[in-house]
Amino acid sequence: MSQPQQEKSAITPRRAEDFPEWYQQVVRAADLAENSDVRGCMVIKPWGYGIWENMQKVLDAMFKATGHKNAYFPLFIPMSYLAKEAEHVEGFAKECAVVTHHRLESDGKGGLRPAPSAELTEPLVVRPTSETIIGASYAKWVQSYRDLPILINQWANVVRWEMRPRVFLRTAEFLWQEGHTAHETADEAIAETNQMLHVYETFAREFLALPVFTGEKSASERFPGAVQTLCIEAMVQDRKAIQAGTSHFLGQNFAKASGIKFQSREGKEELAWTTSWGVSTRLIGTVIMAHSDDDGLVLPPRIAPTQIVILPIAPKPETRDAVYAAADQLAAELSAQTAFGGEPVTVEVDKRDIGGGTKSWEWIKKGVPIRVEIGPRDLENGTVAVARRDTPPKSKAFMPLGEFASCAPGILEDIQHALLARATEYRDANTVKIDTKEEFYDFFTAKNANKPEIHGGFVLAHWNGSAEVEAKIKEDLKVTIRCIPFNAPEEVGKCVLTGEPSQRRVVWAKSY
Amino acid sequence: MSQPQQEKSAITPRRAEDFPEWYQQVVRAADLAENSDVRGCMVIKPWGYGIWENMQKVLDAMFKATGHKNAYFPLFIPMSYLAKEAEHVEGFAKECAVVTHHRLESDGKGGLRPAPSAELTEPLVVRPTSETIIGASYAKWVQSYRDLPILINQWANVVRWEMRPRVFLRTAEFLWQEGHTAHETADEAIAETNQMLHVYETFAREFLALPVFTGEKSASERFPGAVQTLCIEAMVQDRKAIQAGTSHFLGQNFAKASGIKFQSREGKEELAWTTSWGVSTRLIGTVIMAHSDDDGLVLPPRIAPTQIVILPIAPKPETRDAVYAAADQLAAELSAQTAFGGEPVTVEVDKRDIGGGTKSWEWIKKGVPIRVEIGPRDLENGTVAVARRDTPPKSKAFMPLGEFASCAPGILEDIQHALLARATEYRDANTVKIDTKEEFYDFFTAKNANKPEIHGGFVLAHWNGSAEVEAKIKEDLKVTIRCIPFNAPEEVGKCVLTGEPSQRRVVWAKSY
Repeated sequence: MSQPQQEKSAITPRRAEDFPEWYQQVVRAADLAENSDVRGCMVIKPWGYGIWENMQKVLDAMFKATGHKNAYFPLFIPMSYLAKEAEHVEGFAKECAVVTHHRLESDGKGGLRPAPSAELTEPLVVRPTSETIIGASYAKWVQSYRDLPILINQWANVVRWEMRPRVFLRTAEFLWQEGHTAHETADEAIAETNQMLHVYETFAREFLALPVFTGEKSASERFPGAVQTLCIEAMVQDRKAIQAGTSHFLGQNFAKASGIKFQSREGKEELAWTTSWGVSTRLIGTVIMAHSDDDGLVLPPRIAPTQIVILPIAPKPETRDAVYAAADQLAAELSAQTAFGGEPVTVEVDKRDIGGGTKSWEWIKKGVPIRVEIGPRDLENGTVAVARRDTPPKSKAFMPLGEFASCAPGILEDIQHALLARATEYRDANTVKIDTKEEFYDFFTAKNANKPEIHGGFVLAHWNGSAEVEAKIKEDLKVTIRCIPFNAPEEVGKCVLTGEPSQRRVVWAKSY
Repeated sequence: MSQPQQEKSAITPRRAEDFPEWYQQVVRAADLAENSDVRGCMVIKPWGYGIWENMQKVLDAMFKATGHKNAYFPLFIPMSYLAKEAEHVEGFAKECAVVTHHRLESDGKGGLRPAPSAELTEPLVVRPTSETIIGASYAKWVQSYRDLPILINQWANVVRWEMRPRVFLRTAEFLWQEGHTAHETADEAIAETNQMLHVYETFAREFLALPVFTGEKSASERFPGAVQTLCIEAMVQDRKAIQAGTSHFLGQNFAKASGIKFQSREGKEELAWTTSWGVSTRLIGTVIMAHSDDDGLVLPPRIAPTQIVILPIAPKPETRDAVYAAADQLAAELSAQTAFGGEPVTVEVDKRDIGGGTKSWEWIKKGVPIRVEIGPRDLENGTVAVARRDTPPKSKAFMPLGEFASCAPGILEDIQHALLARATEYRDANTVKIDTKEEFYDFFTAKNANKPEIHGGFVLAHWNGSAEVEAKIKEDLKVTIRCIPFNAPEEVGKCVLTGEPSQRRVVWAKSY
């Protein structure tokens, strides 16, 4: 009655069995975050927040290197502000948290209620994004062209009520940064929009090990009120797309709505040209879905809260002190190393008194890039057992104890590169050119709901430029244009749906 | 008809003329922050936010060095959570921002309104502090003594509706950090409470150049729900006190309210012992009021967004390139220096095309610790003109250009020490022991509303320990016990109001 035993995985179900559930289980097993009792609001636990802190540190330095400074604007936006920009109100004034009272009082039954006497004259909206409230400040700050450009970024929480929340990817409250700049000319604002998209692309590739498509959104997918929305789009392991960052050229729309006017060099009153750009804790979800495997989280070393964990194996009291001392010594040597051209290596020694197997699996599931075991026999042999997270859990290399510290930066860099190479290979293998409607529909139609091959991935196909075609394909297949890619070769072709003439291929995919 | 001319100051009014208005003008002249259109909510501008970023960086490292990790909890708290801890509800469930709806809709008149169909079943409160929402998570995380301690900090925005907001000191929304820890024993939690107060005291002294009284709050001034509230209290230049940080031992009160239970080493179910501790953007207001002068902001070098500004003086086009090159060269040399045992020196070259006098005064008002002027004549002489913010605006020292960079860290350290020494001297000169009611009342009674000597400062006086005495003095004089100081010598005396026996002196003051 015995069946051939399948190799066990730490996460149940596997990716191939049920991708959405696998994702939830990876988040749980890595202790990254959890849902709170407040609908759609997540608790970001220390290991998840540590990833965000690393992302913040890198991005913040990149923003400052491109001339931006941080500031902070109010959490609350007067309801009337949202109504100022016509498209914006359509896009953002819907699912918002609305503050209507400023006091609670006893309800006489042992509970509380909003005090009727403390109703606000004008309701306040918890910011879903800050163009309007920041615009009100810029309108006061700008008088002359000499006051421009304004180059400001804000790290903040925002709230967009979500009916179907999913941790990190779509939550009612999330953390993000939002850059808001104002310029003298359209050209300057466009250059800023492009520059910040480039910052995001570089960050995604170099730090998150994510190859991304960069390009422009079609009009249907633009930020409400923007003239142009640029984006980075990543592919994750169910072959769907995730919009991982956006940079908007807002033209003079928001300047007009907020009254950001200035006296030009010619002495005329003009409206400023503005931009906004942002990435959020959604990046954490993207990283998880892109790199993790059936044993749990896999983290790119450059954003891992801890890059190397040392696991001392000391079951016998008589050898414990020596093993611990060697582990601490190794940790000190590792902490003195730098990787990636100057970043300090981060290391932790896990001395918790729990079983070695359990302990090791915990760190596998948490995605720590390198695990190092050191026990009494290693001390005798002068070795350590080194395991990389990007190789199977049981694969270990024995290295000389005295040499490991100096080799570690190279191994971390190698893992970082390997993850990028793997993700790039995956994306490229699942991105195809399609020229007929039949093939297109077939590519995006599920063959078997229980298989990961529910669809093929990204399609590069011609499009006639019409919103009707987008709407039809979205309705039929839940597929949208992710971007009109930059640097795509001009290529005469025919719209995949209508057969009408087209100048270039665009990227189509299902998305989160 | 000529009158003797008084030396002009950059800020009008002077401290001695109208301290509250002087404060507002210093904030404005330094471009630190401004009020927004949203009642009580401030906009923190880049120079003000830069100070906060420096504070965050230092504190964050201190928290991590004491074993804490960062996490993030929801902005919203279900209304019923606030009602769980009896004292807490009294203290915090009053002036809150209450979210009652999750959608806006058109009001049919071109505006918006909260959608009646989207009223929340249970209103949500924007966190005024997070004990209750974090407690709900800890209750899930803790099963056994092995899960303790939990040592977590959160950087966040909080909202407490304020009727009389004052920028940085008391605003409806403010930024802060809140540490929340859970422990196995009361002793451990008390040790944590003390440790974090010590962190705050060290930070205030070493980085903010603020000498503070440390001690325990009387029962009347405790955090609602706490067993013990420890605090740091600073004196500012109108001799009032500012509570600059607090650390609370919460006993088992919040553990009981939130259900944080664990199985003890003896196998019994027990309640955890918790603490919380926080400092906020109020620290920025404290620094401004403590150190600034009639020419504007004075910043301790260790928290200044820029420590040294280089002002190239190049009115003639033919010498401009050489002056700019020398300024850039000096900036590069300064950036390579470290001060205070390893912190990189921060420097900025201000090449804006505005008058030298205006430019120099801008930086004086912004409180930058060192200004360096370099012009064509300096290049010939091989000198720079160096001005310290802690000396009068016209006092300059000429130093050899080639030596300044290596001297700069020493000058920054000297300024830091000078500010601490000055603040300590001021505080000590205005802190007196008083033993009679008459003297006490006289000390705190305004002699002349137009003079800064409206009262004498801090009083060390005996107290019988009763809340009635506190209430009487608060009502008569608006004076409260700021703290029962640590390490105060036991000294038999008589309560300054009642003459009843007392064991030690406590600190009395007016406060913000």
